Amino acid sequence: MTLHTLTASLIDQVASGAAVLGTGGGGDPHVGSLIAKRMILEHGEVEVMQASQLGNDDFVVPLGMIGAPSVSVERIMAESEFRSAISAIERETGKKATAIMPIEVGGGNSMLPIAAAALMRLPIVDADAMGRAFPEAQMVSFHLHGYGPGTTVLVDHHGNEVAGYPINGVWSERISRAIAIEMGGGATMIDYAYSGEIVRKCAIPGTLTLARELGAVLAGLGADGERIRDEQKVSKLCEIMDGHLLFHGKIQELQRDVVGGFTRGEAELTGVSAFLGQSLRLKFQNEMLIAHRNGELIAVTPDLICVLDLATGNPVTTESLRYGSRIAVLGAPCHPMWRSQRGLETAGPRHFGYEAKWQPVEQLVARDGKV
Amino acid sequence: MTLHTLTASLIDQVASGAAVLGTGGGGDPHVGSLIAKRMILEHGEVEVMQASQLGNDDFVVPLGMIGAPSVSVERIMAESEFRSAISAIERETGKKATAIMPIEVGGGNSMLPIAAAALMRLPIVDADAMGRAFPEAQMVSFHLHGYGPGTTVLVDHHGNEVAGYPINGVWSERISRAIAIEMGGGATMIDYAYSGEIVRKCAIPGTLTLARELGAVLAGLGADGERIRDEQKVSKLCEIMDGHLLFHGKIQELQRDVVGGFTRGEAELTGVSAFLGQSLRLKFQNEMLIAHRNGELIAVTPDLICVLDLATGNPVTTESLRYGSRIAVLGAPCHPMWRSQRGLETAGPRHFGYEAKWQPVEQLVARDGKV
Repeated sequence: MTLHTLTASLIDQVASGAAVLGTGGGGDPHVGSLIAKRMILEHGEVEVMQASQLGNDDFVVPLGMIGAPSVSVERIMAESEFRSAISAIERETGKKATAIMPIEVGGGNSMLPIAAAALMRLPIVDADAMGRAFPEAQMVSFHLHGYGPGTTVLVDHHGNEVAGYPINGVWSERISRAIAIEMGGGATMIDYAYSGEIVRKCAIPGTLTLARELGAVLAGLGADGERIRDEQKVSKLCEIMDGHLLFHGKIQELQRDVVGGFTRGEAELTGVSAFLGQSLRLKFQNEMLIAHRNGELIAVTPDLICVLDLATGNPVTTESLRYGSRIAVLGAPCHPMWRSQRGLETAGPRHFGYEAKWQPVEQLVARDGKV
Repeated sequence: MTLHTLTASLIDQVASGAAVLGTGGGGDPHVGSLIAKRMILEHGEVEVMQASQLGNDDFVVPLGMIGAPSVSVERIMAESEFRSAISAIERETGKKATAIMPIEVGGGNSMLPIAAAALMRLPIVDADAMGRAFPEAQMVSFHLHGYGPGTTVLVDHHGNEVAGYPINGVWSERISRAIAIEMGGGATMIDYAYSGEIVRKCAIPGTLTLARELGAVLAGLGADGERIRDEQKVSKLCEIMDGHLLFHGKIQELQRDVVGGFTRGEAELTGVSAFLGQSLRLKFQNEMLIAHRNGELIAVTPDLICVLDLATGNPVTTESLRYGSRIAVLGAPCHPMWRSQRGLETAGPRHFGYEAKWQPVEQLVARDGKV
């Protein structure tokens, strides 16, 4: 079921699947999908390339939005931003973009590069640099392989452009986040623009195809043509992602702010159905980062914590969590690269200031022995 | 007495005179003077050019520090920052710098461009874009003439570089200030880099020579070779700047913070000698911006409010104000360009959120009728 061409009709599936992988972050998938569909309808379908098909001399441009996802819902990215970001990276590097790639397969940030690819008549690479979404710019596979962000471009809808030459990914995150805040809380960003040779080595392959597979489940389409019922969807997603159902519950307490260029907060859930009498606490910084069930750690970054609507299975972003919503929470292992020492240093619990020691979600679930 | 060459022995005079014009801001003049003297001793004297001598095709690069002056005292600018800032502007614009200019004649920001000129073996232009120091990047003569900041470069001592293409001076200030904060509260900046043709039209000429003239007074050197005594210095400065003595007093209350990339605060003075029984309140944002004497407005930006040590006449920067210090306060008219409608919109009291309506310092003093 590898993707070869992205048509407007496939966009919704990719968007909702990417929002599952986005663990609540990556920007609003619905808004992103509208932009991607419009660009495809106006400029034509988008060719999908596998990372393995990239030539050494290809110049692959990852494009996305940096900022608080809450902003991406209210300020829709302008077409001019795609053009100016790509022309800025081409001007600064002296190289012509030959392909676009999502920097993260998550929510809107899986859609914006598709929109840019349609607009620029370039192929999109079926890969990303996270295998999920993460809140900070240095949390990418390139960083784990020792590659810096390189020339970094930020543009806004006013027409401001900034080209950064940060010394490493952590500095890029600091400086870019500050610029994004001034640009209105969100900006279009390109970083880690590398040759096909480096992208083949670093990128996590097949993640748009994976997103589409998850999205097909959410659309009720089984692999063999049969219909998937709403109540089957969460377990089907678990199956594909090798994940575990962590909770069924209702949001009882919710605290959320846009601060420092992030959507930050936490939610307290009280259990329903099989989880009656139990509790779950979720903390997030754009993405869901840590979950405690009945006071015990049950899943933590870099593993995936996905929040889904209990009735429909549709993913719920951190900015659209609502008091009283009934949700299912799913935990799934991250890409093995994130479980390395450098991966855990980069995106593990300590980086975010949590005391918890990282443990694989499958072990935490097995030890808890309840599901 | 027009400057032709800047030698290490002239630096102290220019620095202290520029600190008077700097109205408390522009970065620390002592630290700046040490950097400038070291660069001159290592690389040679600096040729001083008049703005009128610039050819149309000259490429004049204004270089300075952006951030809170309080930071410039603790983190000394590295030689590498000059080189990387100039090579970044040359790379981004594709033009070779032919002269350096101070963006403001104030404190350290009059010294850093001299240091850069020595290092790069380029002449310095005897001019600046403010005729004083101002806290925000768009408060320049280029802006009043309708010119934007153009390509804007910020670098830090870590090796981070950012090239901005802001749409106007106000956006440049917002984005650059945010970057400077992340870079540690201060950064080396180049903006408003223009051709000789434009600089001839926009720059305020002769301001390094003026600074030197003020500095010679502070060094006790009269024009005719006679010695100026300490108690004569403030009135000599007033004479040269067409200014007025506003107060003699002791700092009774002082509140100062580094916030938003600025040194902000206020000081309450109680009068001494002729001003016994009177009070003066000063408010500052890097530079001294507004003064009320006995509760009445007595001087306000864009006019100059200069704070001097009562015993020696030496200028006191806003970050070196101390409780109990005895100071003289001097008010002087700004360059006429700042008194235009656009000048007052850009750097008048309303811009800084003060209720006061701008009035020329000479009228305020005459009306008050006390000095």
